[in-house]
Amino acid sequence: MKTNNKLFFIGIVEEASEEKAKILIFPDYCSGLKGIEDFSHLIILYWIHLRATEKERRTLLVFPRRHAVGIEKGVFACRSPSRPNPIGLCVVELLNVEDCILTVKGLDALVNSPIIDIKPYNPRTDAVSDAHVPEWAS
Amino acid sequence: MKTNNKLFFIGIVEEASEEKAKILIFPDYCSGLKGIEDFSHLIILYWIHLRATEKERRTLLVFPRRHAVGIEKGVFACRSPSRPNPIGLCVVELLNVEDCILTVKGLDALVNSPIIDIKPYNPRTDAVSDAHVPEWAS
Repeated sequence: MKTNNKLFFIGIVEEASEEKAKILIFPDYCSGLKGIEDFSHLIILYWIHLRATEKERRTLLVFPRRHAVGIEKGVFACRSPSRPNPIGLCVVELLNVEDCILTVKGLDALVNSPIIDIKPYNPRTDAVSDAHVPEWAS
Repeated sequence: MKTNNKLFFIGIVEEASEEKAKILIFPDYCSGLKGIEDFSHLIILYWIHLRATEKERRTLLVFPRRHAVGIEKGVFACRSPSRPNPIGLCVVELLNVEDCILTVKGLDALVNSPIIDIKPYNPRTDAVSDAHVPEWAS
């Protein structure tokens, strides 16, 4: 039987600064971390809970650069936190794993953001160093 | 008012081969693509619909390498499609945008996989060429 399209929250951001953030994985999901300490970098998917409102989830066009007048872009063409599914994606460096707590560097989530998935970063498929980005986004 | 943790499906995979896949964005969300043609690469988040069962979503430990005996790892330490939130993440090359259809290269989703988000790829934050991956995962 298929389950519905409802997300499970597997953890939460306990401390957040760019230099060092702490992610707590809830006990029910903690065994899913086995082996994660072997990777230097992770992809964190989190729920941008403060934008999980009906209004923000209807947003499709935004002005992504605060100081660039008149550059209106679609939410799928930028990393706007207002989007139909407010999923934040961030590549972080893994500093430490202890019990059910990951300490990472570079996380852009806020404290209390629910975590929805963690994936190991693999440069073979995830790193495209020469990807082109337009001037308005760089 | 906060909405719940339910995902909206914004599109669907219409054709899937590694060389060329077609993603249809539903009309209600299509304006969110504005400006996406300026990027060479995208991050596609999709719902692994065939693993969206109660049983698969309870999976926390897997044997990620088919031919490596006894290497049991957590689902957050590998890219297993069976995981609490069956979200697939794939970096693709954008080949073409026409109306509400994206043609991309490198998508690992199956036909009929629902799309849940699309983000532009920015090498400044998303590319870590020297990330370390353990031998069992490489």
